[in-house]
Amino acid sequence: MKEFWSSRIRALEPYTPGEQPRDRKWIKLNTNENPYPPSPRALEAVRAAAEAGLRLYPDPEASALREALAEFHGRKPEEVFVGNGSDEILAFCFQAFFGPEQPVVFPDITYSFYPVYAGLFGVPFRQIPLNEDFTLPVERFLGDNGGVVFPNPNAPTGIALPLAEVERIASGNPRAVVVIDEAYVDFGAESAAACLDRHPNLLVARTFSKSRALAGLRVGYALGSANLIAALNCVKNSFNSYTLDRVALAAAEASVRDRAYFEERRREVMATRTRTAARLEALGFEVCPSCANFLFVRHPDYGGKALYEGLRERGILVRRWDQRRVQDHLRITVGSEADMDALMDALSALTTRR
Amino acid sequence: MKEFWSSRIRALEPYTPGEQPRDRKWIKLNTNENPYPPSPRALEAVRAAAEAGLRLYPDPEASALREALAEFHGRKPEEVFVGNGSDEILAFCFQAFFGPEQPVVFPDITYSFYPVYAGLFGVPFRQIPLNEDFTLPVERFLGDNGGVVFPNPNAPTGIALPLAEVERIASGNPRAVVVIDEAYVDFGAESAAACLDRHPNLLVARTFSKSRALAGLRVGYALGSANLIAALNCVKNSFNSYTLDRVALAAAEASVRDRAYFEERRREVMATRTRTAARLEALGFEVCPSCANFLFVRHPDYGGKALYEGLRERGILVRRWDQRRVQDHLRITVGSEADMDALMDALSALTTRR
Repeated sequence: MKEFWSSRIRALEPYTPGEQPRDRKWIKLNTNENPYPPSPRALEAVRAAAEAGLRLYPDPEASALREALAEFHGRKPEEVFVGNGSDEILAFCFQAFFGPEQPVVFPDITYSFYPVYAGLFGVPFRQIPLNEDFTLPVERFLGDNGGVVFPNPNAPTGIALPLAEVERIASGNPRAVVVIDEAYVDFGAESAAACLDRHPNLLVARTFSKSRALAGLRVGYALGSANLIAALNCVKNSFNSYTLDRVALAAAEASVRDRAYFEERRREVMATRTRTAARLEALGFEVCPSCANFLFVRHPDYGGKALYEGLRERGILVRRWDQRRVQDHLRITVGSEADMDALMDALSALTTRR
Repeated sequence: MKEFWSSRIRALEPYTPGEQPRDRKWIKLNTNENPYPPSPRALEAVRAAAEAGLRLYPDPEASALREALAEFHGRKPEEVFVGNGSDEILAFCFQAFFGPEQPVVFPDITYSFYPVYAGLFGVPFRQIPLNEDFTLPVERFLGDNGGVVFPNPNAPTGIALPLAEVERIASGNPRAVVVIDEAYVDFGAESAAACLDRHPNLLVARTFSKSRALAGLRVGYALGSANLIAALNCVKNSFNSYTLDRVALAAAEASVRDRAYFEERRREVMATRTRTAARLEALGFEVCPSCANFLFVRHPDYGGKALYEGLRERGILVRRWDQRRVQDHLRITVGSEADMDALMDALSALTTRR
């Protein structure tokens, strides 16, 4: 097997996303989707885009969406890049900013796609262990790195790094690009979008999949200096001229323009998170302080594998990694109040029956 | 400028797609879009997908669409790959099958994205000049190449290579992958999909943008042995888990399942092509024998640049390349009958006024 495969990809170990089961009805708390639907204006935009016609190519520059995002963030359109989900944008970052010469650094416990991108694009990397309490050891990220990438809040811990510390890392790597993966930032962390003017090497990646409830449409974006955005455009235009379709462009723009809905829904998720964390702690769980739409938890008396499987038997999917330091943790998406009730019932049963 | 850009991309010259102007109403014959709308069932599927919800990630394996395509082509689902337009699939091919060791070969007059992919992924390449009449010099493609890629029918000529010759190239490169870019095959050429069982090194790339009138949705697919498809999945799953959104998956599947509409529309385009070619010849144009939804033409007495600009002044966009051998040619998309009438009126005026 693997005859005809390029030497570059034979040893690749692809990323494994959380399951998207189609076999039965699950309470899906495994991929950090939003429990609420997207803005009704986004759905209206989908219908309108289909009616307006799909036979013509979309705008390869995605101008209308970039203008809406620029307005939302108080940036210029040339400081905004859009892509087919933030995963595509992170992949483009590895091509645009990181090279074979010097290792890029990221935490040891983090989004597990980073080492995969590094493998795909032949970028050497170094993983820096998180502190015992899963906070980021900022000092160890400073220096002459080939690049830096980490999520803020971090995944799967949910722990946020204060903006001043993000800026220290940007300042401490003056010759390298520092990519802040802000997939979850809308659930309570400080965005580095506020300090882009001070750091020409800072790039912020965002997604419509979490706080905007459009995981099904695959839209992400990046904010940074016009120079960094031009590098991403150079990669994108050497890869695929039209990465976003007409429907996704229209729906994403409508979502950005519906600020009230966005604010209301993310506040609801944060409120549910606060209540759920307290209920989990009452059951004896240790809960990482989360600024994301998930909770990273462990129980001192019950193994992660047993809890994961027990939940699965009860129709509840969560995420777990078979990896040192976190094998007894579960990452649980903040779902609807009803989802959380079902979760708590199941965890009560699983933690009181010995 | 280009501070922080990876050394790999500084010298890249990205691909330039045909214009998608938004300033005024054009007769758009420059990007080979279909003049007819997609299947009404595809539009219905868009609406249904939006109603069913967009908050959840799509199926990362695109199983339903792959099953529909497998059925359509008489293959197995594991012999089908789907992607965000055939451009993304071609880019993945350069990563999956071609390496830095040995040059990949393609014609000198062909889809101008191939050298761009080669640049992006650091693959050396060699261009083989087409014959004087723009046919492919098959002999010169045989041998110990690092890979082969060409469109059939070729772009921008529209000239098709008979299947037996395609098979000769596949057999003549037994250790390399031969990618046949069949973006236009539905308009009258023979597909290599029919001979995949005989050639484990043959990969066929297709698109929904032309014959299925879904350029606005960005869907492409590939057919090949399960081994080659696994290599594409390895690249895709190391790049972006979910490359196709829920709406695109649903619409593409509905389009594949509407065979009658597909047959009717592609026949209409071919009939218009035949009539238009005759009218162009009557005006004195030399017309390449086209099996695509475009015509590649030149007039012995008028330069390509003047004709291009004259059409543009009259609100008609076509495509032209400022490149030796083809600088006096125009590539004209086969549009609706009304589009073709407008084209002929303009060309009549432009070729009789001296």
